[in-house]
Amino acid sequence: MLAVGVDIGGTKIAAGVVAEDGTLLATTRRSTDPHNPAAIEDSVVDAVEELRRDHEVGVVGVSAAGFVGKDRSTVVFAANIAWRDYPLGEILADRLGLPVVVENDANAAGWAEFRFGAGRDVDDMVMLTVGTGLGGAIVTDGQLLRGAVGAGAEVGHLRVVPNGRACGCGRDGCLERYVSGTALVRETQAALATDPARASRLIELAGKPKRVTGPMVTKAAMEGDEFAISMLTELGRWLGTGMAALSAVLDPAVYVVGGGVCEAGDLLLQPASEALDQQLFARGRRPLPTILVAELGNDAGIVGAADLARA
Amino acid sequence: MLAVGVDIGGTKIAAGVVAEDGTLLATTRRSTDPHNPAAIEDSVVDAVEELRRDHEVGVVGVSAAGFVGKDRSTVVFAANIAWRDYPLGEILADRLGLPVVVENDANAAGWAEFRFGAGRDVDDMVMLTVGTGLGGAIVTDGQLLRGAVGAGAEVGHLRVVPNGRACGCGRDGCLERYVSGTALVRETQAALATDPARASRLIELAGKPKRVTGPMVTKAAMEGDEFAISMLTELGRWLGTGMAALSAVLDPAVYVVGGGVCEAGDLLLQPASEALDQQLFARGRRPLPTILVAELGNDAGIVGAADLARA
Amino acid sequence: MLAVGVDIGGTKIAAGVVAEDGTLLATTRRSTDPHNPAAIEDSVVDAVEELRRDHEVGVVGVSAAGFVGKDRSTVVFAANIAWRDYPLGEILADRLGLPVVVENDANAAGWAEFRFGAGRDVDDMVMLTVGTGLGGAIVTDGQLLRGAVGAGAEVGHLRVVPNGRACGCGRDGCLERYVSGTALVRETQAALATDPARASRLIELAGKPKRVTGPMVTKAAMEGDEFAISMLTELGRWLGTGMAALSAVLDPAVYVVGGGVCEAGDLLLQPASEALDQQLFARGRRPLPTILVAELGNDAGIVGAADLARA
Amino acid sequence: MLAVGVDIGGTKIAAGVVAEDGTLLATTRRSTDPHNPAAIEDSVVDAVEELRRDHEVGVVGVSAAGFVGKDRSTVVFAANIAWRDYPLGEILADRLGLPVVVENDANAAGWAEFRFGAGRDVDDMVMLTVGTGLGGAIVTDGQLLRGAVGAGAEVGHLRVVPNGRACGCGRDGCLERYVSGTALVRETQAALATDPARASRLIELAGKPKRVTGPMVTKAAMEGDEFAISMLTELGRWLGTGMAALSAVLDPAVYVVGGGVCEAGDLLLQPASEALDQQLFARGRRPLPTILVAELGNDAGIVGAADLARA
Repeated sequence: MLAVGVDIGGTKIAAGVVAEDGTLLATTRRSTDPHNPAAIEDSVVDAVEELRRDHEVGVVGVSAAGFVGKDRSTVVFAANIAWRDYPLGEILADRLGLPVVVENDANAAGWAEFRFGAGRDVDDMVMLTVGTGLGGAIVTDGQLLRGAVGAGAEVGHLRVVPNGRACGCGRDGCLERYVSGTALVRETQAALATDPARASRLIELAGKPKRVTGPMVTKAAMEGDEFAISMLTELGRWLGTGMAALSAVLDPAVYVVGGGVCEAGDLLLQPASEALDQQLFARGRRPLPTILVAELGNDAGIVGAADLARA
Repeated sequence: MLAVGVDIGGTKIAAGVVAEDGTLLATTRRSTDPHNPAAIEDSVVDAVEELRRDHEVGVVGVSAAGFVGKDRSTVVFAANIAWRDYPLGEILADRLGLPVVVENDANAAGWAEFRFGAGRDVDDMVMLTVGTGLGGAIVTDGQLLRGAVGAGAEVGHLRVVPNGRACGCGRDGCLERYVSGTALVRETQAALATDPARASRLIELAGKPKRVTGPMVTKAAMEGDEFAISMLTELGRWLGTGMAALSAVLDPAVYVVGGGVCEAGDLLLQPASEALDQQLFARGRRPLPTILVAELGNDAGIVGAADLARA
Repeated sequence: MLAVGVDIGGTKIAAGVVAEDGTLLATTRRSTDPHNPAAIEDSVVDAVEELRRDHEVGVVGVSAAGFVGKDRSTVVFAANIAWRDYPLGEILADRLGLPVVVENDANAAGWAEFRFGAGRDVDDMVMLTVGTGLGGAIVTDGQLLRGAVGAGAEVGHLRVVPNGRACGCGRDGCLERYVSGTALVRETQAALATDPARASRLIELAGKPKRVTGPMVTKAAMEGDEFAISMLTELGRWLGTGMAALSAVLDPAVYVVGGGVCEAGDLLLQPASEALDQQLFARGRRPLPTILVAELGNDAGIVGAADLARA
Repeated sequence: MLAVGVDIGGTKIAAGVVAEDGTLLATTRRSTDPHNPAAIEDSVVDAVEELRRDHEVGVVGVSAAGFVGKDRSTVVFAANIAWRDYPLGEILADRLGLPVVVENDANAAGWAEFRFGAGRDVDDMVMLTVGTGLGGAIVTDGQLLRGAVGAGAEVGHLRVVPNGRACGCGRDGCLERYVSGTALVRETQAALATDPARASRLIELAGKPKRVTGPMVTKAAMEGDEFAISMLTELGRWLGTGMAALSAVLDPAVYVVGGGVCEAGDLLLQPASEALDQQLFARGRRPLPTILVAELGNDAGIVGAADLARA
C-alpha cells in the first residue's frame, strides 16, 4: 500500500508518496506560516490531494514538532504552532477521507533510519540529530518509544550537568547545551574571545568572532586547524557522554548520528566513541554500541511518517 | 495456564505457582550457593518438580540477576554467579521438559508491579527499587524494555554527576551513589562525623556512627528527628532528580518506588515529587508523572517471571 | 593627614576628603564618559583641586575597576576603559603634585569595611558584593590581598560548577553566575516561564516575566511570597557554597556581604549561613565564620581608596 | 642568628640547625609515638638540646600537622595527635628557655620553598604538595597566609565538584579526591577493573589491580605506557583545574608543585599547564602563572619552621 508522508516544518510543508520499501515516488511542497494553523491544514490537504491524483494512496502520516498523544492524532503541545490538545489527525482525516496518523518529527525521522537507513539491521536503536538543537528518537525491540504523553526521547533535555549551562527550556545542564550546533558556536566564540591568537583561521573565515558559524568550524577543522578540531573534539566527547548515559537506560545496539554537525565525520564521532567506551556501564562485559552516520537526508521525516502510518 | 516463577537469589531460590491473574497458589524454597552453578540448576529443577506434583504447569519463568539475551534464555553476564553467555533457559528446559524463559530479576519484579501492582492502570511505567543498590525496570507502551543485550533499565548506573561519587562499577556519579540504602548510610555517617551534636537520636540508636543503618535513619525520621529527616529529604531530592532525567528519555505515566528505603514513605516521596516537579522537562505543558509505592513485596520476582513466561 | 579618595565609575566620578578615622568631610562629583580616558583624568584633577581648596590634602587614593599592578599606579587591564598597562597614578600625581595611589575598586570598598565598617574587629575578612555581578575583597592578617598582577580576589570568577553556566568572561561555572543580581533575575525568569502559576505576585509587580527585576524579587519575598523566597533561598545557598570554598583557602573570621541583593537580609543570609555550616571544611573543629552585612554604603570606595593611599 | 627547626611527623621527629641563608648545618632524629603527646615533647626537647651543644641557637621553630592559632603557639586542632587548643609552643619554650614558634607543617614547607627554593624570585606563590593527600601553602605579598584560626591554605579541601567524590573529611568533591596519590591509585584501579586489556604493563608490575601503587603508574608512564600516561594526564588536568580556581582568588605568580607524584614531571605538569591556560580567568589579559617543581626535599619543613621562627 502506498502512503503519503507529510512533514510540517516551521515555514514549509513537504509531502511525498512512499512505497512499502521506503522509496519516495513523488514529492511536493508548500510554503506556510506557523502562526496560521488553519492555513497549515489547508496546505496539507492541498499537497496530499495533489499527490493522490497520480497515486493510489491508502493512508497518510504527518510529522510535526510537538508532543503527540497515544491516539496518534492529538498534538498535546507544540512549541512553534498554537496546537494545545489539538485533534490534528482527526481533522485532517475528516477532510481527506483517509486514515491519518500524526507522529513527532524526530520520531518519524528516526523511524525512517530504523526501517530503511543506518539502523535497519538492529532492533534497538537511538538516533541523535545534532542540528541547531539536539533531537532524538528511540526504537526498542522494534517499537518506537513515544512515552505516555508523547514526550519520550527528548534526549536533548536529559540533564547531564547539575546546575550546568542554562537552557532555553528554563532548566539547566541539558545535553543539548553541550551537543548541538548552537553549543558549538557558543563555545567557539567564547574561546575566541579569550584567546584570539589560537584561532586565526576561524577569524579569517568569519571576519570576527561573532560571525563564526558551525559550518565554519567544521570547514576549518577539516582543513586541519587545531583550534577548530579541539572544539569538535569537545563536542564529540559530550556526545559520547550522552550516549553512555542513554546506554544505561536503553541499551541500544546502534547509535545513529544525524544533523548538520555530523558532517565533521570522525572529527566528531571518534571522540564520541572514545568517551562512550570510557563511560559505558559494564564495559568489557558487553559489546560497545556501534555509532553510525544517518543515511537518509531531509526526506527522513516524510518517509518515516508514511511508514508509521502504514504500521 | 498456570506458570511457575523461580527467583534465583544470592543464597536461596524461591519458586511459586502463579495463576493468570497473578495469584500465587503455592510456593517452595531451596537454599543455594552462588559459587556452584550446577547445584543451582539442580535446586531449580527440584523446586519446579515439587510444585508440578500438585499443579498443571505449562511454562516456567526464571528471574536472575544479570544481563539476559534476546533469546530470553542466555545469561550474557552475571555479577555474582559464574554465568558468561550461558544458555540457562535451554538447559533448564531440557531437564524439565517444559518451556523456560529467563528474565533479569529487576525486570521480572517490575513486570509484576506493571501487571498486578501499582502500575496496573498505565502503559508506561518505570520502577525504581531503592534497596542496598538502586534497581530499575522500564515498561513502555506495555512492553518490557530489555535492550540489545539485556543491559537496559540499569538506571542505578545513569550518571547524574560528572566526576561524582565513585561507584563500585568503576565509574563515577552513578545515580545509585545518591539514591540507595548504601548512599543513605554513607552520607549519614559522614554528616555524623563532622557534626555529632545534630544527631543525638541516631547515636542513641546506633551506639556509634559506624553502626548506623538505613532502617535506623528511617526510624529516627519517622519519630520526628530533624537530622534523620534531612538525610531522607536529600535522598528524596536525588530520587526526584533521577526521575526527571528518566522522564526526558522515557516519559512514563507512573514511577513505582520499591525497596526497603521507601518504608520512609512521604519523608522520601514528598521531596522526590518536588524535585521531579522542578526539574521535569516541559513542566506545565504535560502532566507530572505520578509517584506510587510498590504493592507487591518479595514475591514480585516469582510473579513477574511466571507472567512473562506466559506472554 | 587628610586624604582624598576618588572613585572612578562607569559614568561618573565621586571624590571626597577623608579623615584618618574614616569620616567623610566633603564630597564632589563629575559626570564622565568611559570612552574618553583623557577626559576622565581631567575630571579627576578638577574634582581633587576643588576639594583641596578647603582642605589640606596630603595624598590621593584612586579606586578604579581593573587589575592594578604592584606599583599601585599602573592599571594592567580594565574592562570598561581603554587602559592597558597604563600609568594612571603617575600621570595623576604629575598633574596634581601630590602622591597618588591607585587601587582596584572592589578592594578599596572592602578595605573601607575592614577599617571602618563591618570588618573592623577582625584581621581576616572577605567581602562579597552581590550586585549586578559578584565582587570581592580579601584581607588576610590585616593586609589587602592584591595578587601578583592585581587579579586576586576575583571571587566572582571562582569556578564552582565544572561545565556550569556560561559566563560573560568566556568561561563557565563562575560563582557570579549563581550569586548576583543578574543570576537572580535569570533564574526567576526561567522559573516563571515554566511555572507562571507559582508567581502571581511577581507577575503582578512586573507585568510580564521579562520585566522582573532583582528588587521586585526582594520586595515580593519580604512581603512573604513563597516563590520569591525560594529564589532568594537558592541564591543564598550558593552564596554559602562560595563562602565554604573560600574558607578552605582563606579561613577568614568574617564574611561581609554588600551590594543591592543583600537588602533581602536574612532571606539571603540565613540560607547562606546554613550552606556554609554544612560545607565548611573541618566543621565542628573550628568556629563558623561570622556573616555580617556591609555597613558603609556607596562611599566605601572613596573612603577605602583614601585610607589605602595613606597607608 | 641560628635557628633550630623541628618537624613533628606521625612516627618521627626530625630537627636541624638552620643558618640565615637556609643552609642546614646539623640534623638529628627521634622516633616517636603519635598517641603519646608527653613523649613527643620530651623528644623535641631532647633533640633541640642535642643540637644546641654544638651551635649557638637563638630560636626554635616547630612544624606540626594541625591548625595553629594566631599566637603561633597554640595548636587549635590536630588530626593525628590529641592536641585541642593546646599551648604547644609555650610549653616547649618553658622547657627549653628559648623562644618557640609553631607553624602548620604544609605552611612551613611552603615557606622554605618561598624563601630558598622554587619560589624565591616572586612575592606571590602557592605551593601544592601532591603526596598521599594534597597539601598547600600560600604566600601573598611576601607573607604566609595562615587564616583566622590557622585553617587557611587547606587547598586539598577546596570543593571543585558539587556532589563529587566522597572525601575522608566528611564532605565531597574536595580537590584532594582528584589530585593526590590516593586519587591516582583509586582511578587507576577502577579503570583496570573495567578494562584490564588496556593495562598489561601495570598488571605486569603489580601482579593484580589491587596492588597497583602510584609509583608503579609513574614508572609505567615514564616507560611510555599509554594507559598510565592517560591516568597522569587526567590527574594533571585536575591539578590545573585547581590552579585556575586558586588563581581567581589568590593570583600567584608561581605555583610550586611538590610531593611524590610530581616525579612524573611533564607527564603531570604539561596537562596541568594546559588546563590552567584554558581555565584561567582573564586569560590573554594577564600572564599565565609559572608552574615549577619544588626544589627542597624532605628537609623543607625543618628549614621553613626555623626561618619562620626567626622572622
